[in-house]
Amino acid sequence: MKIAFAQINVTVGDLPGNAAKIASFLAKARRAKAGLVLFPELAVTGYPPEDLLFKPSFIEGNLKVLKRLVLLTRGVTAVIGFVDRDPQGRLYNAAAVAANGRLLAVYHKVHLPNYGVFDEKRYFTPGAKPLVFPPAIGVSICEDIWAEEGPCRQEAWAGAKVLVNISASPYHAGKLRERERLLARRARACQAWICYNNLVGGQDELVFDGGCLLVSPKGQVVFRAPQFTEDLFLASIPSSGKPRRRPLPADGEIFRALVLGTRDYVQKNGFRRVVIGLSGGIDSALTAAVAAAALGRKGVVGVSLPSRFSSAGTRADARAVAKALRIRFLEIPVEPVVAAFSQALRGSFEGRKADATEENLQARIRGTLLMALSNKFGWLVLATGNKSELSTGYCTLYGDMVGGFAVIKDVTKTQVYRVSRAANRHFGRRVIPESVFTRAPTAELKPRQTDQDTLPPYPVLDTIVKDYVEADRPAASIRSRGKAVASVLDRVIRMVDRNEYKRRQAPVGIKITPRAFGRDRRMPITNRFQEI
Amino acid sequence: MKIAFAQINVTVGDLPGNAAKIASFLAKARRAKAGLVLFPELAVTGYPPEDLLFKPSFIEGNLKVLKRLVLLTRGVTAVIGFVDRDPQGRLYNAAAVAANGRLLAVYHKVHLPNYGVFDEKRYFTPGAKPLVFPPAIGVSICEDIWAEEGPCRQEAWAGAKVLVNISASPYHAGKLRERERLLARRARACQAWICYNNLVGGQDELVFDGGCLLVSPKGQVVFRAPQFTEDLFLASIPSSGKPRRRPLPADGEIFRALVLGTRDYVQKNGFRRVVIGLSGGIDSALTAAVAAAALGRKGVVGVSLPSRFSSAGTRADARAVAKALRIRFLEIPVEPVVAAFSQALRGSFEGRKADATEENLQARIRGTLLMALSNKFGWLVLATGNKSELSTGYCTLYGDMVGGFAVIKDVTKTQVYRVSRAANRHFGRRVIPESVFTRAPTAELKPRQTDQDTLPPYPVLDTIVKDYVEADRPAASIRSRGKAVASVLDRVIRMVDRNEYKRRQAPVGIKITPRAFGRDRRMPITNRFQEI
Repeated sequence: MKIAFAQINVTVGDLPGNAAKIASFLAKARRAKAGLVLFPELAVTGYPPEDLLFKPSFIEGNLKVLKRLVLLTRGVTAVIGFVDRDPQGRLYNAAAVAANGRLLAVYHKVHLPNYGVFDEKRYFTPGAKPLVFPPAIGVSICEDIWAEEGPCRQEAWAGAKVLVNISASPYHAGKLRERERLLARRARACQAWICYNNLVGGQDELVFDGGCLLVSPKGQVVFRAPQFTEDLFLASIPSSGKPRRRPLPADGEIFRALVLGTRDYVQKNGFRRVVIGLSGGIDSALTAAVAAAALGRKGVVGVSLPSRFSSAGTRADARAVAKALRIRFLEIPVEPVVAAFSQALRGSFEGRKADATEENLQARIRGTLLMALSNKFGWLVLATGNKSELSTGYCTLYGDMVGGFAVIKDVTKTQVYRVSRAANRHFGRRVIPESVFTRAPTAELKPRQTDQDTLPPYPVLDTIVKDYVEADRPAASIRSRGKAVASVLDRVIRMVDRNEYKRRQAPVGIKITPRAFGRDRRMPITNRFQEI
Repeated sequence: MKIAFAQINVTVGDLPGNAAKIASFLAKARRAKAGLVLFPELAVTGYPPEDLLFKPSFIEGNLKVLKRLVLLTRGVTAVIGFVDRDPQGRLYNAAAVAANGRLLAVYHKVHLPNYGVFDEKRYFTPGAKPLVFPPAIGVSICEDIWAEEGPCRQEAWAGAKVLVNISASPYHAGKLRERERLLARRARACQAWICYNNLVGGQDELVFDGGCLLVSPKGQVVFRAPQFTEDLFLASIPSSGKPRRRPLPADGEIFRALVLGTRDYVQKNGFRRVVIGLSGGIDSALTAAVAAAALGRKGVVGVSLPSRFSSAGTRADARAVAKALRIRFLEIPVEPVVAAFSQALRGSFEGRKADATEENLQARIRGTLLMALSNKFGWLVLATGNKSELSTGYCTLYGDMVGGFAVIKDVTKTQVYRVSRAANRHFGRRVIPESVFTRAPTAELKPRQTDQDTLPPYPVLDTIVKDYVEADRPAASIRSRGKAVASVLDRVIRMVDRNEYKRRQAPVGIKITPRAFGRDRRMPITNRFQEI
């Protein structure tokens, strides 16, 4: 049997567009003489549709689309994700099985994830029944196959030889390998082939990486579709051997995730250009490189906003990055605006010393200038802050935090360096100059400032961020990592806890770790819990 | 039997503080010779603790607190909300029944709300068993009593003559009456007394209004505790007659909710003062009145930030509001800063006409000045935008939207007028002058501007906001409201849909309607669904 994996990039809410895309992939599958074509979870609506699911007209529109798509299944059996509704008005995360213009069966997802970024119990009623359709094909949806005692096992008992799973599984670094290990185990346990179809594309803070898989009953991955690419992929059952394609290297994979997430956010929201404040530092350089890879050099404008504290080195590097990426470059010095604000505030601030206020002011002037360019020219501002900064609040609300999208908000500073190397490899040249890698990180908001005046060394900080933010490891256990960590742990934990209010007003950005800020981590702002 | 309702205001995460408060209310109840004292749902942790529940040390701390509290129940039976954990590590939203220093029983909440602002299925495992303890008292937690076929009915069947429900039920306008109707129905169906204990206090976007109730088996409310007040209230079973206290008038109730929500956000986050940009309009006037009622006049600073477009009338009214509230008042003209920005952007903007960019720039200069005052003096900025603006995006991101807390973000403009009258009644004098009520609303960002240049008349707009945002009414049904609504409906819906990105970066603020922006309404930013 020939299986077609429709690894498609749909858009949340775009019922007509998604319908047209599914129709065209149905036709492709038919032309390729596939017996079975698989579409992702909730392909009709896009994933996750969130509270759009409360709109009756949205549910009805999706049902109408499915009805029309069923009519297009001449000569091929299709499994299509959609939202089903029963006569009592309950909603189901569903898979339609259709062939030759007829709806053969509907499967309802049994295991509804309600953790991490997922809120499926907010919307859906769980299904209760496995589904096996002829010749011997079992159907499940995403989370279902992660459950040891789930419908897949029941379907195998009922005789299924092929288990189809349609997913919208969000990317994080290393997730592909997790999925492969899980599916290998499940295939062996069920003694069945597994056809794993996954969504591809960016949706707000999520990137779906595709990477459809065919796994043999022995647990061998025999086919692996490329990640981050929309296409129809073909594989056969039975088949053997190893897939020709190898997984991407770790940092290159993250770079590709950032590129896809950025491209889709920008384009699906109707923007054609982005604008980025280039400081000469590595965060903005990486953000610009991602944007240029995502949108092409004409889609990106770099702006240098130097103050009296900007060194010749960083100013030159800002320019060098723009030149290397061949993007448009503007320079707007901020000093005269700083002076005007200082004058306006002179009376109110009389007798007070300079402090972080004056630093934040510069950052906010830069933010305001970027937003003015955005408003005037319709360019989307990309924020350039990384996860280490956002964790500790080492960033200015309404300053460097401004933007519609925060490309690297889930990338720690130590990862930023590694992913920047991957960016240079991607372009095949040094779009990020060596001096940007070697200069000590600095916000340049006062004289001779470096990040390490305020923050622990980044390798130490990022260890704590991973343990405390991503893994909820207890402080006592983090402390056992060693002296360097222990000596700064209490201070870092307090910084993380205290800055939830900033993160709550941050732009959305791309999740690349097991726990990102955003839907993934729901902390109260008002919170007196102190672990330490 | 004498019942003590501990209508307490705890703080999320403050395990030692909450423990001390519960202990002191236990002692008060004992002194009052109460047989039974009730504490709210999750009284030990505060509600909602959100992802703090993933921290093992938080769960353990809460269990230790409960253990200590149990020892303090000499001479009184107490029902205390806490987080229970079973040997498998599963968590339960639980109620401890303790007396004379011993833990008699633990009840696990059966019905876990996972809609609206609630995410309880993210954290908790549902309980499965009703609980009746001697003499004949059934226990349930919040949502449980809303379920027709829930544990309350089982407890009544098992002989319970008194049903205790401990809640953390968030306020919205009219909720008290909803609860009374529900409890009356449930009391009659179960032929039992209902002792309804509710949390009081503000937590981020939620206000819990207290309003503990005693309802007779005939469905009569025989005791009603005041809303928005922390205290120990006593009632007896049996008792009869009507409660002496009447519910608050509708607009006064909203004003009180705003005051409590603001006070608790400010104080629980460790601030002593707030700063508010006073434009001379009604939104900032009401925000200042709420703040002054919440924090006292010394806790509030008003700042007028006039530009060339500010009229003598609004400048005078800004000053008049500050004077009437007797709060500190600053005036910082923004024109010189506007000029500096214009100069800085002259090159980039060459040949372009003035547009919304220049309007947003003024708003952002104001936001930056308020933030500078905040940074320098440690004052929390209160944002002044209302729900009508936030729905349509008629507000400037990083401009008038700056702030740590947005007091009236869930109050529509038509409600703002009514609640402002209530504010004047609260103060017993015109803290908001009549001219502020009668002037046509204007952002004063360009000459002769009024809100109605851009927006439909507010009564029409607010009808659509209520129908579309709060009720998910289909467009066709909203259209049937009449010509005034129908003629602007498509435009308003597009504005609402298109401005999700702004709302995502807005400060948290107080929910007073059945559906607020925030945890309550989870819409994708990237979203091509168009109902119209």
